Amino acid sequence: MSNNCTIGEYLINRLRALGVEHIFGIPGDYVLGFYKALEDSPLQLINTGDEQGAGFAADAYARLRGLGVVVVTYTVGGLKVANTTAQAYAEKSPVVVISGAPGVEERVRRPLLHHKVKQYNSQYKIFQELTTAATVLDNPETAAREIDRVLHAALSRKRPVYIELPRDMVSKPCPNPTANPLPKVKSNPDALREALKEAVEAINAARQPVILAGVELHRFGLQDELIRFFEKTNIPLASTILGKSIVNEHRSHYLGVYEGALGQTDVTEYVESSDCLLMLGAFMTDVNLGIYTAHLDQGRSISVTSEKTSIRYHTYENIRLKDFLHGLLEADIRPRELGNIPRPPAPQEFQPTDQPITVKRLFQRLNSFLEDNTVVMTDTGDAMFGALDLAVHGRTKYLSPAYYTSLGFAVPGSIGAQAANPNLRPLVIVGDGAFQMTGMELATAVRYGMNPIVVVLNNAGYGTERPMLDGEFNDVSDWQFHKLPE
Amino acid sequence: MSNNCTIGEYLINRLRALGVEHIFGIPGDYVLGFYKALEDSPLQLINTGDEQGAGFAADAYARLRGLGVVVVTYTVGGLKVANTTAQAYAEKSPVVVISGAPGVEERVRRPLLHHKVKQYNSQYKIFQELTTAATVLDNPETAAREIDRVLHAALSRKRPVYIELPRDMVSKPCPNPTANPLPKVKSNPDALREALKEAVEAINAARQPVILAGVELHRFGLQDELIRFFEKTNIPLASTILGKSIVNEHRSHYLGVYEGALGQTDVTEYVESSDCLLMLGAFMTDVNLGIYTAHLDQGRSISVTSEKTSIRYHTYENIRLKDFLHGLLEADIRPRELGNIPRPPAPQEFQPTDQPITVKRLFQRLNSFLEDNTVVMTDTGDAMFGALDLAVHGRTKYLSPAYYTSLGFAVPGSIGAQAANPNLRPLVIVGDGAFQMTGMELATAVRYGMNPIVVVLNNAGYGTERPMLDGEFNDVSDWQFHKLPE
Repeated sequence: MSNNCTIGEYLINRLRALGVEHIFGIPGDYVLGFYKALEDSPLQLINTGDEQGAGFAADAYARLRGLGVVVVTYTVGGLKVANTTAQAYAEKSPVVVISGAPGVEERVRRPLLHHKVKQYNSQYKIFQELTTAATVLDNPETAAREIDRVLHAALSRKRPVYIELPRDMVSKPCPNPTANPLPKVKSNPDALREALKEAVEAINAARQPVILAGVELHRFGLQDELIRFFEKTNIPLASTILGKSIVNEHRSHYLGVYEGALGQTDVTEYVESSDCLLMLGAFMTDVNLGIYTAHLDQGRSISVTSEKTSIRYHTYENIRLKDFLHGLLEADIRPRELGNIPRPPAPQEFQPTDQPITVKRLFQRLNSFLEDNTVVMTDTGDAMFGALDLAVHGRTKYLSPAYYTSLGFAVPGSIGAQAANPNLRPLVIVGDGAFQMTGMELATAVRYGMNPIVVVLNNAGYGTERPMLDGEFNDVSDWQFHKLPE
Repeated sequence: MSNNCTIGEYLINRLRALGVEHIFGIPGDYVLGFYKALEDSPLQLINTGDEQGAGFAADAYARLRGLGVVVVTYTVGGLKVANTTAQAYAEKSPVVVISGAPGVEERVRRPLLHHKVKQYNSQYKIFQELTTAATVLDNPETAAREIDRVLHAALSRKRPVYIELPRDMVSKPCPNPTANPLPKVKSNPDALREALKEAVEAINAARQPVILAGVELHRFGLQDELIRFFEKTNIPLASTILGKSIVNEHRSHYLGVYEGALGQTDVTEYVESSDCLLMLGAFMTDVNLGIYTAHLDQGRSISVTSEKTSIRYHTYENIRLKDFLHGLLEADIRPRELGNIPRPPAPQEFQPTDQPITVKRLFQRLNSFLEDNTVVMTDTGDAMFGALDLAVHGRTKYLSPAYYTSLGFAVPGSIGAQAANPNLRPLVIVGDGAFQMTGMELATAVRYGMNPIVVVLNNAGYGTERPMLDGEFNDVSDWQFHKLPE
């Protein structure tokens, strides 16, 4: 990293080095200088209609690309992404929130600059509650170190972070670039060895081990390791709701989504009767637990996440999920017969009839319509629960706020998804209530030449705006929304 | 107040006693119990499309009615009104944010309930930064006292407050109702007497005293006192930007809006050459100061707000604006001749031409179109600055986020305004950028039978959504938006 750059340039260079190619946001006066620097860089700006849309888009981008960035102005922009940042925190999506702010100098001289709320540091204090690391770049001497500290936190913990950039700092020289910006996080080798030994013994002794695959396998990009592990051992896997689409769901080892009593009965019974449940990167939220209808016996479980490793009733600290999974791959685990396991229902050929469409038949139709490049984006509610039955083809091809359950994610999220990978075709499934909140972002998709397919589940929530569907489900064919906003 | 009510009922009863008739918001599971209690009450629910719209509507309602209420669910609703609550804080609008939340009991037993961010108290901590008083009603014994404490803070300081209502508390009995829920805030009589004596002497000695009327005169409802004062003394008045529409702007004592070098030259000169500037409820923000182009001499100023009273370079504490104004009315201040003062340009008859419409001619046209029941609602930007030249007929008939300057206020704000007073006809002036953010709330207005007139200033900001204007200003006639969403 060159020593001759500004703070704004250093931040941009670091983001690019971490694979970021797109920025989502809306300019405003306190962030104009940084927007100018962004425009002069190879990063592509995507301006959404409302900051909320930018926040959701950056979250989807982060889920697919490993890091997403939203750039907003002070308070009137920043506070509009409080909710989307909270979602990223709850669901472990590494989003970098960059907010412009009044200059360090003018904060002293001017007590009442526009956009100010209580104190100049109010927004910083708010984002401390919503992120895993936060900083105000108010000192050029420490700016590089601070940028790298928070970016490292985002990447290692897969949580959002907050960088506040006072407008008089953007063009200041940035000395002291960090020598080793991303120090490697290591497992405690002794704890890792002991935990692996216990786990391998339990797996080998088990009659019916089952893997429960969680969201962190997506976030840490451990799908290859997961596939090698279940192919080597023939241990079948289910996913949590938030972990859905961890593998191509047509794979023979895949049982389906485990969701307690709310799910497919044979999958629930199979998972709950396991005498060794290997939970990888799975968080036991109320939604993942089928609103507490799950019966998982901790005395027969092994759970490994980036935060904690538990075997039965005891815990280990400082074990990385990746190291644990690599250890399992190298360990002497006996392969077994896959046997006769529950399987998700196969997509059926859609039979056109004269009957009114039902939700069930809609999802049947959508199921046979999925292709390899389809990424299913669902909003909260019926859209999310209905779509759990869709057999997704690829890994990380189902994005849904399945724990935080905020409304309004899917439409702007599809913009982030298609920016992250232009070969993807988002299939957005959204309720009418959620569509009212962020559906206007379709205009953003049009502006940037994107082509999500949007299905609005019009269940007469509020009975107001129904711009895409004319009152009822009469049509579930391949909509091209860009023919609609005329 | 009866001793036999639940916490939810006590809260509703207190709001009704304070004149609230409408509630804005969107239900969600953690707040469903309270929504049921609201439905069973005489309060009318107005469901907006997005929580952001509810927050802005409640703010407008509070500006017109003295108290506004937004009811949302935990985090996914609450954090969506962070920005609108910040606006209410910055611009002194008493909005009560009521948020549902996980139950007190379940917070202990369940570590990962949906919607949770970092800690269960994260949202409470965030709203402490955005409100003047905040509480979590987690104890029935203290609930009534806490409700009254924060409502009193909202009313006495004209700032938003936060009430978090865990879902298992709504139906709990509410003992210990407060005996005196709204204790009177009193001025320090000695400080008041001394400050008044000084002020009266300065006013009587002055050659050209001028009143600069600020936003707090709206918020504390002191328009009658203000009118009596300038009619008794013939001291002319200007208003700050945020204070605009403090009186009917056709009144002979009204100079116009003072905005430093950005304003009408003769008004600026008149105000700045005053040898006794009496600033009432005015905050010297950057916007009010014409982005620091103002030249106001503190050595010739008297400033009274609810927070501080200053005469020249010394200050007094604990003087209420209302007591000070009443003191001025009773004091022996010599009446003078009104003389030849600057006046806002009179609305001109609109002359139809074949020329393309310009922003200037648009506002000329709108000026002659204003009626006594028109409330002008402007969004931030050109819409706000252009509309400063409109001569508003009534008091508090111009609502605009003129300090916080968030985009997206005007359309949902018009819903709050018309709910607050169904006889008002909102004239909404909004840029295309802001319209993209909250324009969908027009559907809410339709649903509740409201009829705002909406003018979108399409200045090609983002060049995307232009649902109401076809590319250019071709038409500034009386739009009925409800003919448009077809």
